[in-house]
Amino acid sequence: MSDQMKTISVAKSHGGVQGVYSHASDSCSCDMIFAVFVPPQAREKPCPVVWYLSGLTCTHANAMDKGEYRRMAAELGLIVVCPDTSPRGADIPDEKDNWQFGCGAGFYLDATPEPYAKNYRMYSYVTEELPALVAREFPADMARQAVFGHSMGGHGALTIALKNPGRFKSCSAFAPIVQPSTAGWSRPAFEKYLGADETSWRGYDATSLIEDGHRFPEFFVDQGTSDGFLNDGLRPWLLEAACAKAGIALTLRMQDGYDHSYFFISTFMEDHLRWHAQRLS
Amino acid sequence: MSDQMKTISVAKSHGGVQGVYSHASDSCSCDMIFAVFVPPQAREKPCPVVWYLSGLTCTHANAMDKGEYRRMAAELGLIVVCPDTSPRGADIPDEKDNWQFGCGAGFYLDATPEPYAKNYRMYSYVTEELPALVAREFPADMARQAVFGHSMGGHGALTIALKNPGRFKSCSAFAPIVQPSTAGWSRPAFEKYLGADETSWRGYDATSLIEDGHRFPEFFVDQGTSDGFLNDGLRPWLLEAACAKAGIALTLRMQDGYDHSYFFISTFMEDHLRWHAQRLS
Repeated sequence: MSDQMKTISVAKSHGGVQGVYSHASDSCSCDMIFAVFVPPQAREKPCPVVWYLSGLTCTHANAMDKGEYRRMAAELGLIVVCPDTSPRGADIPDEKDNWQFGCGAGFYLDATPEPYAKNYRMYSYVTEELPALVAREFPADMARQAVFGHSMGGHGALTIALKNPGRFKSCSAFAPIVQPSTAGWSRPAFEKYLGADETSWRGYDATSLIEDGHRFPEFFVDQGTSDGFLNDGLRPWLLEAACAKAGIALTLRMQDGYDHSYFFISTFMEDHLRWHAQRLS
Repeated sequence: MSDQMKTISVAKSHGGVQGVYSHASDSCSCDMIFAVFVPPQAREKPCPVVWYLSGLTCTHANAMDKGEYRRMAAELGLIVVCPDTSPRGADIPDEKDNWQFGCGAGFYLDATPEPYAKNYRMYSYVTEELPALVAREFPADMARQAVFGHSMGGHGALTIALKNPGRFKSCSAFAPIVQPSTAGWSRPAFEKYLGADETSWRGYDATSLIEDGHRFPEFFVDQGTSDGFLNDGLRPWLLEAACAKAGIALTLRMQDGYDHSYFFISTFMEDHLRWHAQRLS
């Protein structure tokens, strides 16, 4: 283990190891914490890496504690990485009472205006810096990567896959924000992180990226019909329309009666990991 | 739903419903919160009830969030009830800096000396009051009940099964405290809850109950070998010796490398629920 990474905790689970680690992040100019599950198969050979990006207010711990991914990851031989959702710390610009901006709300983008440009660089963090660290420190087969996430993290997964189609074998999402540039809960954050010129926002908006010519082979999305954010913030039909127009295969499952919580996510976690494993093998 | 029970939250999960409820408890003289998962089979007919008793510092939420029981409970048609571990509230006598006594540390016993006798009556609560409420409010087949738990809750499961062998079809435990009357982390609590006369402690001590003639057909215990509490607090070999002497069947699995956390519990949750389901069917 290098000097760059500190182990916060490790525990055996489902035959593999669930760890929590920290490191000094150059991208975010602060210490960052992340969780990695390494399946038992990794004792024999490098394993594919599945990135799980969490939603607003979350840390690395939400999916680790409530996502119920280890059983399937251990069966399928998948490394699962759960990054944090933003920079954190006493020196990080934040709006403490605003759960839709600042700490816990990094939106997986690289901010441009000050004072946010120094720390809020979650796009670079999860696409460059953390993958390099994972490749160095874990028995990871970086030629086989997948990405998925929930809500704001679903937005992250979709946009990161569209911008890096050659890197990821598959992409899925639970209740993703599919058009953050027009949703009330994300527009104020985008304006602060990226400035008033909405042209720049298109680079972090899944439907705009598709309209602008970015492509990914197929998406798999689960969305609960009783999700309180469905009609205002999430609106999967906007992704459906964009994919239809662009010829991108989309499996969109409207799940009757499910809400936005991890009770929903954990229910369909197995389906998502099987989807990814099929495309990673 | 009766006036006696308030719904705090409900969410669909694995085809069933995970709810959190509160009620004014007579046993504990305070409001108590508990979690109930009702599987999809309960729409057709009453389902067996499995009681999960949590460990020190826990609430109803630990197993609900991290126990990963819903997938199997939904498959097997089991109602899972997770009570709190003690009375709580501003009026409850407590030692805030002591995690081994007071709130979060009820030890599933009925306290006798004041000031604890008024509220710390978790034995009556989980064996009488809460079962009556569950029978009234949920589609529960109370003729088919099982009990299991973790650490202090494993102690609770073992003692409650031994004292009520006719009520429970099965009993299992993750890393149970098997002889709390002689363990350093429980003796001070037993003295405060039950008084200095250790004779009365035997009624809440699994190995003492067996020595004193209480019987249960069989126990199933998983214990991690890397559990930091193994040698001082848990000591499953004491249960092993007591069961051997009494002719009680014990399946004790020492799980290599596992610790005391929910990463351990969730790994073997499926095995425990299958064990119970076989004996409840």
